[in-house]
This record gives sequence, structure tokens and C-alpha cells, in this order.
Amino acid sequence: MSQTDNTDEIAQERLLDLAEEFYDQFLDGEIPHMDIPTRSKSNIVFDEESQVWVYGDRKSTRSANSVRGARKLLKAVYTVEFLEQQLEEDRSSTLRELYYLSESWDEAEAKFNDQSESDKLVEDLEIVSGVKREDFHMRPEESGAKVMGPLRIREQTNRGDREIHCQEDVGQGGYQIPNNPDTIEFLDHDVDFVLCVETGGMRDRLVENGFDDEYNALVVHLGGQPARATRRLTKRLHDELDLPVTVFTDGDPWSYRIFGSVSYGSIKSAHLSEYLATPQAEFIGIQPSDIVEYDLPTDSLSDSDVNALESELEDPRFQDDYWTEQIELQLDIGKKAEQQALASRGLDFVTDTYLPERLDEMGVI
Amino acid sequence: MSQTDNTDEIAQERLLDLAEEFYDQFLDGEIPHMDIPTRSKSNIVFDEESQVWVYGDRKSTRSANSVRGARKLLKAVYTVEFLEQQLEEDRSSTLRELYYLSESWDEAEAKFNDQSESDKLVEDLEIVSGVKREDFHMRPEESGAKVMGPLRIREQTNRGDREIHCQEDVGQGGYQIPNNPDTIEFLDHDVDFVLCVETGGMRDRLVENGFDDEYNALVVHLGGQPARATRRLTKRLHDELDLPVTVFTDGDPWSYRIFGSVSYGSIKSAHLSEYLATPQAEFIGIQPSDIVEYDLPTDSLSDSDVNALESELEDPRFQDDYWTEQIELQLDIGKKAEQQALASRGLDFVTDTYLPERLDEMGVI
Repeated sequence: MSQTDNTDEIAQERLLDLAEEFYDQFLDGEIPHMDIPTRSKSNIVFDEESQVWVYGDRKSTRSANSVRGARKLLKAVYTVEFLEQQLEEDRSSTLRELYYLSESWDEAEAKFNDQSESDKLVEDLEIVSGVKREDFHMRPEESGAKVMGPLRIREQTNRGDREIHCQEDVGQGGYQIPNNPDTIEFLDHDVDFVLCVETGGMRDRLVENGFDDEYNALVVHLGGQPARATRRLTKRLHDELDLPVTVFTDGDPWSYRIFGSVSYGSIKSAHLSEYLATPQAEFIGIQPSDIVEYDLPTDSLSDSDVNALESELEDPRFQDDYWTEQIELQLDIGKKAEQQALASRGLDFVTDTYLPERLDEMGVI
Repeated sequence: MSQTDNTDEIAQERLLDLAEEFYDQFLDGEIPHMDIPTRSKSNIVFDEESQVWVYGDRKSTRSANSVRGARKLLKAVYTVEFLEQQLEEDRSSTLRELYYLSESWDEAEAKFNDQSESDKLVEDLEIVSGVKREDFHMRPEESGAKVMGPLRIREQTNRGDREIHCQEDVGQGGYQIPNNPDTIEFLDHDVDFVLCVETGGMRDRLVENGFDDEYNALVVHLGGQPARATRRLTKRLHDELDLPVTVFTDGDPWSYRIFGSVSYGSIKSAHLSEYLATPQAEFIGIQPSDIVEYDLPTDSLSDSDVNALESELEDPRFQDDYWTEQIELQLDIGKKAEQQALASRGLDFVTDTYLPERLDEMGVI
């Protein structure tokens, strides 16, 4: 069974719980209010145990004791009703549609003034209810990326189930991850490890060279900063199929952040780290030490690169011997290199030499 | 038969012709040289007959009569050799890989100094040989978008042929267009028209509402400014299957340019307009007149929006009564609206009312 039927019910229950809470507050003669964790950088802590970022203990209260506060709660109630109905009808919508849809609401005071207001409210509801946006059937605008490898899945689409083998039943472009990857059930596989790849050019190189086939790798294209759907799928592949997850990016501070968002979660979605982050994910490269070892073509670090590296040295997510050594080496050599720079050794170097050596060192193969 | 076997041979021939030309020039005691159309804005003309942008008659000459010119031709010869070998081995690479790969060439003078140099050379070779980049097996970095609708295709992948029905054999995310859509053969279809959609949110709305199914529409996601692969596929759908092509975008000047790039081609790839542009494509909306008629939620035009609209009024691609009227109306009301603003009339308004009305007006359905 896919995970969606069950989560739909839970999401509906949680939404009704919220409405009930307001109702009870009215009954008890209390001014209706809603407590939510303060969503500022100062209230984000790194949870050592789960190795992801989560919100701290500070709370803010949205209360109807002012016109402004009352209006916020009114909007929340209208949104809860909309989401509940959406789940009832098994439909979905985007954040942007919700914003525009509020124009059709009968109560003018409940309409959103701009999209940032409705976006923030949905995030609040995620946090308060403990249900993630996708389970409210709010689709992200950003698409998930694509997958290639020896994995057979069943996806629950709104026009029936589809069984798809992510090598045999797809074109060169691979299997397109749906907006809500919890509609996917893993059927069977020959995957030995997951290989998340930053750039499209490198993803295509690996697929052309048949790396997924030869090494039983599931190649997941990240496409820069990965979409929620991509991170969620990666986490499920790790947790449910017990697969090692590896991340292959360019060798610069911005790419280390991409690795960080797969592995430790991001500050923006700290309340979702447990759904989206895969703390066991491991970084393949490009490592600063690879730049030296393989004498790769490089660019010089810009000032903003240097600043980003220095701030990573202070970042609790990168506080270990491995990252300290690599980042200090990079600051020392003053260079960065792209994934595709490996092509300076020939088009097959990455699949014949670099990846096998690195994966062997890491104990993955 | 797919188009690729044949085009591979043609591409190889044209490359060898180029090399032969240099050879003959040497034999005749001429200084080797290559004539290419001047690639500047002043040498781009709108071809009234084919309704696309093409290069004019002005030529520039790359000649070996200077060290700088000789070095350019040397790089061209090395690149021709690389491309010829790549075709021979039925492999492919990206523009970025070509740049890095030049590091491995034995002749130091032939190496590229930066990627803009190798990119430009490949464009030169496209123009001189009349063969497009994809037929040299140079993959774009940008991915094509995704397709959903009643179309069965066969794609030639590097691991065998795949037959895929773009509704029945794909997930909610649809069929991912490969980097080179000329590897696709159209097998059979029930498509009545092609509907290119700018935003992912609207694409997902149409798919969720089953618009492709109910109206026999092939929904092609553009994802902003469309990739070459997406434009090429759209053109082939029109030319080979004789399908009407319609384009549905936001209602602002930047989106009209997206329509323009599908329909008339872009200045950057004027030498490819005949491969990529579909002059018969028609604009659905959002039209400025829709903003008025449906009283859509809007944003005010910014200064740069106004400038872009004014420059479109002067643009030969938009010189007809329809566009003049719409753009003048937009400047007059000072407003723009997004596709998803239709949600202010409810989530089904776009598929139940707006699109059927517009497509009927346009004579498409």
C-alpha cells in the first residue's frame, strides 16, 4: 500500500483538531489563539541525535486579541476549511493557487493580501499540525527531478496506478519524480546505492556511460538546490530500502550547501528536516583534495566563495575533521572545480576511475 | 525509422567537407579560411516567407593570415576531429565537457581559454555546416520539459528502444523529453492539438483536472523560456503530425517573448529557426483583454514591463493587428496577470471555462 491513503486521514484529523481547539477556546471563554515555534534563525538548533536542524523552544502566540491577530486567525480558519475540503475531494493545488483562490472567498477580510502571507500561513499550519504541506495536497511549484536505475515502482496517479521500471520503462530522460513522492511505492530493485548528482550534464554523462547499469546505482538528478520532492524521495530510498546515499556535486562552497540540504536539512524548512533530510548521506566530491590529486582545471575562488567557505567552517553542520580539513585545504589552494572538469581526463574518466575509486574508499562498493 | 541514423551520417559528411575545404585551400596555395554569417543583431532579418528570424547576407571571414586567426582555425580543426570521432562512436557530450576535454588535447595551442570560446565555435560550426548541435551529439545542458497526452512514441535510447504512451506508461510527472528529441518516433496518437504551458503549477492543474484526456490535448510544459529540445519537439509535432500548436502563458511582456520563441525563434539561435520555430503556433493567453473580461487579480506593470511592451510594439514579430491591440490595451490598463490568477474563479475555471472558450474562439476545438 502506498503511504497516501493513511496520511490523508491523518492530515484531515489534524486540521479538524485545530478547528476544534479554536472552538473549545471560545467555549471556555478564552480569546482564541494559536502557539507556534518562533521561526527565526535564533530559534533553530542542530539536533545532535537526529543530526538535523529543528526549531528550538521559543514560541510565538497568534491571538485574536487585536484586529490584526483576529484577521490572521480568520484567514487560518478559511484555509483550514479549504484544505479539509481539498482532502475530502482528493484534489490538490499549489501555494499560488491558494493565494488567488482566496479572492473567491465570501468573507473579504479572509482574503490574502499577497502570496507571502498565504505561504507563511501554510508553513504555520504545517508546524502546528505536524503534517507536511504535501499531505495537505499542496503541491510545490518546483518539480522534482528525474531518476534512472534498477528500481521498479508503483505510482498512484489521479488516473490510476502505474508500474514503472526506472530503466526499462523510461526514455533517456528517466523517470520524472512526481510532486508528492509519497504516492510512490517501491516494488523491487537491484539498487546497491543511491547517487545524487548536481548537474544535468553529469547526470547525462553517467546515464550515457551506463553507470547506473554497471554499478547498480540509482542516479538521482538534483538539478542544483534539490526540490522537496527529490529530497523526500532520497530519504525514503534510504530509510525504506536501507540504501547508502551518496552526493556528487561541484567542488565549491555552494555545492557543499546542496550536499548539506540533502543530508542535514535546510534552515528554511527546519520543521520538515525529519521528513526531508538524510543525515546518513555521504559526500563523494568534487573534494578540494581531488582538485590537487587529479590536477583538475579550476577557477579561482571569488570573494563570496571565500566568505561562504569561512561561514561553513563555523557551521555546526560542517563541524568535523573531514570538512574542516577539506575546507581549509580549499581556502589554502584558492581554487574550485566543477564536476564536468573531470572530462579533462577524457569522457570516461568519471565512470571508469573517479567514481569507482571514491566509492571504494568510502566503503560503498 | 527515427531520424537519427540518417542525420548522423549527414553530420559526419558535413564535418569532413569542412576539413576537406581547408585541405583544398592548402593545396591551392590559399591561406585557409572559413566564411560565416556575421552574428550580430544588425545582421538578423525577419524572413517574411518562413516567418522566422534568420541571418542576413553579411559575412565575416576567419582566416589563418594572423596568429590569432590561425589559432581559431586550429581549434576548429581539433573540434571537428573530436565531433567526427564522437559520431563514429555514437557517443555524445555537453558543451562544457568539450571545453574541459580540450585540456587533454596534445596541442596546447588548440585548447580553449574559456567556455564561451568553445560554445561560440560550436555555433560557428553549426552555421557553416548547416547541421545543428544536437546532430553533432552535443547535448544541451538544459533539460527538455515534460509531456502528457494521448501520444505513443518510440525513443531510441543508448540502451535500446523504448515504446512509451505519454499517458498510460508514465507517472503524474509525464514523459521526460530527451535532450535530443530527434531520437523520438511518433507511433500513433489521439491528439487534437498541442497545448504548451508556461508554468509548472498550471501544467499540474491541467493534468490533475484531466484536461489532456477530456480534450485530447498534448500538454507540453515549457518551464519558462523553453529549452531547445522542447521547441524542437513542438515543431515536429506540428510538422509531422499536422497538429495545431497553442501556447498558454502568463499575461506579461516576458511571457509574450516565450510565445515568440516557440513561434518565431530567438535572435540567439536564428540559424536554427527553421529547426526550432513553429510559426503557426497560436497564443491562447493570458491576453490583456482577458484581464478585463474576467476581472483577474493583477499586479501593476513595472517600468521594465512597460519598456518591454513598448519594445514589443516595435518588434517585427509582434507587428500585426492582434498584438498591437493587445499590447496597447495592456499599456492602457497598466496591469499584468498570471496564469494561475484564473484560480480566483475556482480551481476548475481554467479547464471548464477559460480554455474551452478560448480554443473555440481560435477555431482549435
